[in-house]
Amino acid sequence: MAKVTFGLPSIPTMEIGVGILGGGTVGGELAKRLLEDRDAILAKSGIDLRLRGVAVRRRDKPRLFPSRYIVDQPHALITLAEVDLVVELMGGVDPARQLVLQALDLGKPVITANKELLSLHGPQLFARAAQKGVSLLFEAAVGGGIPLIRPLSESLAGEKIERVTGIVNGTTNFILSAMDSDGSAYPQALKEAQQLGYAEADPTADVSGRDAAAKAAILAGLAFGRWVDINQVHREGITNLSTVDLRFARQLGYCIKLLAVADVSPQGPAVRVHPALVPDGHPLALIRGANNGVFLEGPSIGELLFLGPGAGGRPTATAVLGDVILASREFLAGTKVAPRVRFANGAVRDFAEVETQWYLRLETKDAPGVLAQIAAVFGHHGVSIMSVWQEGRGNDATLLLITHHAREESHRAAARDLDELAVVKQVAATIRVIGATS
Amino acid sequence: MAKVTFGLPSIPTMEIGVGILGGGTVGGELAKRLLEDRDAILAKSGIDLRLRGVAVRRRDKPRLFPSRYIVDQPHALITLAEVDLVVELMGGVDPARQLVLQALDLGKPVITANKELLSLHGPQLFARAAQKGVSLLFEAAVGGGIPLIRPLSESLAGEKIERVTGIVNGTTNFILSAMDSDGSAYPQALKEAQQLGYAEADPTADVSGRDAAAKAAILAGLAFGRWVDINQVHREGITNLSTVDLRFARQLGYCIKLLAVADVSPQGPAVRVHPALVPDGHPLALIRGANNGVFLEGPSIGELLFLGPGAGGRPTATAVLGDVILASREFLAGTKVAPRVRFANGAVRDFAEVETQWYLRLETKDAPGVLAQIAAVFGHHGVSIMSVWQEGRGNDATLLLITHHAREESHRAAARDLDELAVVKQVAATIRVIGATS
Repeated sequence: MAKVTFGLPSIPTMEIGVGILGGGTVGGELAKRLLEDRDAILAKSGIDLRLRGVAVRRRDKPRLFPSRYIVDQPHALITLAEVDLVVELMGGVDPARQLVLQALDLGKPVITANKELLSLHGPQLFARAAQKGVSLLFEAAVGGGIPLIRPLSESLAGEKIERVTGIVNGTTNFILSAMDSDGSAYPQALKEAQQLGYAEADPTADVSGRDAAAKAAILAGLAFGRWVDINQVHREGITNLSTVDLRFARQLGYCIKLLAVADVSPQGPAVRVHPALVPDGHPLALIRGANNGVFLEGPSIGELLFLGPGAGGRPTATAVLGDVILASREFLAGTKVAPRVRFANGAVRDFAEVETQWYLRLETKDAPGVLAQIAAVFGHHGVSIMSVWQEGRGNDATLLLITHHAREESHRAAARDLDELAVVKQVAATIRVIGATS
Repeated sequence: MAKVTFGLPSIPTMEIGVGILGGGTVGGELAKRLLEDRDAILAKSGIDLRLRGVAVRRRDKPRLFPSRYIVDQPHALITLAEVDLVVELMGGVDPARQLVLQALDLGKPVITANKELLSLHGPQLFARAAQKGVSLLFEAAVGGGIPLIRPLSESLAGEKIERVTGIVNGTTNFILSAMDSDGSAYPQALKEAQQLGYAEADPTADVSGRDAAAKAAILAGLAFGRWVDINQVHREGITNLSTVDLRFARQLGYCIKLLAVADVSPQGPAVRVHPALVPDGHPLALIRGANNGVFLEGPSIGELLFLGPGAGGRPTATAVLGDVILASREFLAGTKVAPRVRFANGAVRDFAEVETQWYLRLETKDAPGVLAQIAAVFGHHGVSIMSVWQEGRGNDATLLLITHHAREESHRAAARDLDELAVVKQVAATIRVIGATS
């Protein structure tokens, strides 16, 4: 790291050598931006970012940056004296974890967009960064190009955030938007998303809700100051959603979104990812296609909403670049960096104990007294019904119900008992409802 | 400042003495929060914030905090050894400016929510903070409780922001929302806002657009890395808006908002505040009542939107508190703080050269050939018409026009010439249009 003097003599310019692990969509874009925007960043921030190398797994792919920057050995790149700061964009847990720890041990700040790694090993990594007094920043791990991590952990450090509700996976939002707008079934919408590059060849991590669960765990940890393990997140994906329910939801004035929801009570935080009906007037209903949006609630700020591009190389590289500039400022300050957020230990509430609202689609016999029997089951479990619609078809009927808030486990028990009723042929769908006002 | 050891021996707890200048809506709320939330903030951030005093102008008002914290002399409070950090919430330019400079000269970080002060003396204050190596933070100066300053200056430090469009004044948005929803005229809507505490007894700063212009200048400076003086902001308020135009706009699928718009071209930034028609589908059209919202556009991030409470003691105190915690972290690091953003010098584009779209309401004679004459005037000035509506009333007609993008000065010249036409009785209203797609 060299100090050189820039135009204005009173403000010294600082040079920072950057090593990137991973040269794919985000890593390649970041390398390109470091090279192309060097002067603009220098003028605005006073930091002269110098790309030192990009560690890639395979040399034979087309890249967004000149091949002379390609490095084969990530370990070697990290240990280079002229690499001051390491950006981990390779994804996956290993060897990313070892490489991040190695960089931190060398006293080098680390930027990562790896939500999987953070959600599984966050406490170990944050502890190591704190011990070494270096920055570990991860704005790009949640919400792509939307600034979320820094607002949550810094701007709102003085707020008691009570609830975080968000659309944090662009792939599933794209698929659900397509199913909603053109009525296509899940397999077709997935195929379209894959053809347009919004879904990967193996879409499991996205459509199972696992990607959203990792992000939800990270957001909850920052919002509540209490670390939540990804395995403590209740998780349901979108693979079982039927276009029938999207259509019924639309008729009732709702759309269906894959939501990440985290709230906190004196009994601890509860974090879940599941599809939900969202009323058309709700801000999260506006988020179409691959966009993301996060809604924060607290006693003093009321409601805050952040919307923007949740994925893609360019927005994500912008988020990484912001972290690189901040970590450079902190690194150049030359002292140990205090951790931004501390995580307390404590229990996590089980989802079964959370108050939820449900939409249910029941296939029933169309006979007198059916509704009375169904209402009795709900009543028995302490769940009250907000609204009912019935559509008859000869001897059969489809019954749509939306319940008032009641414990999730009461809903589950009611659904089990409904399935036992002779007049109920099938509990065909149960989906939670968020943001409805009765 | 004392270092004391907290529960976990590895993470020391740091005590920071806070002095507040101003004990009004925001200052009083901040004092209350510092006292009530001390333990919660300590647990989450590791910083033990200790209120040392609140300087107030008058002792005889009710306060949100115990009177033993009241101090009469702001200068004395700043110089106290046990005050590590100063929060300026008194508003106005003088003596706020002298007090901020005094604190910076003593090496004490300053937090301010004073957009007027920053928009007039920002360069001097930032230069002094940089020279002393201390933090000068101002998240609460724009957008109340919405994190905007930090996302813009840090998270997006690597993005070339091209345009900022926002509703940054809650008072005028409240008034316009009331005029729109219940059809009340401006004086009635203003009175309602005053009764509900959304407008001050002297509403001039808000309704003239001056408050929004100060905020727009600050946002533009951060977005483009080029300081804009408030006197370089083109400014129009809402006092001349007629309910007639709100009603016509509604019929055409628009609402009317007071917008702050800043964009940049190779010729420099251009910043303006004026009422504008916004199409109903646009995200800024959703912002009702006293809320604020800011839309950021850049080549890599595409579009980002931040929505939330734009004013009020509690949300604003949250923003200030986030700054207090960050400044404390930086102060405790013990080294000089490098400035976050550098401001280049350079020209500012005149609003007359900006491309705008206009809505015009013309009161005309209802005679053959009127539209042809009007269209000829626009054509002469190179302005093309996007759409026209006509409403006849006997011998007279009201003509509503929306133009395509053309230079602001061409629009102005066309409006002048229209006023000269014998068939045009009056150019009754001209309002710009934002976000319309033809």
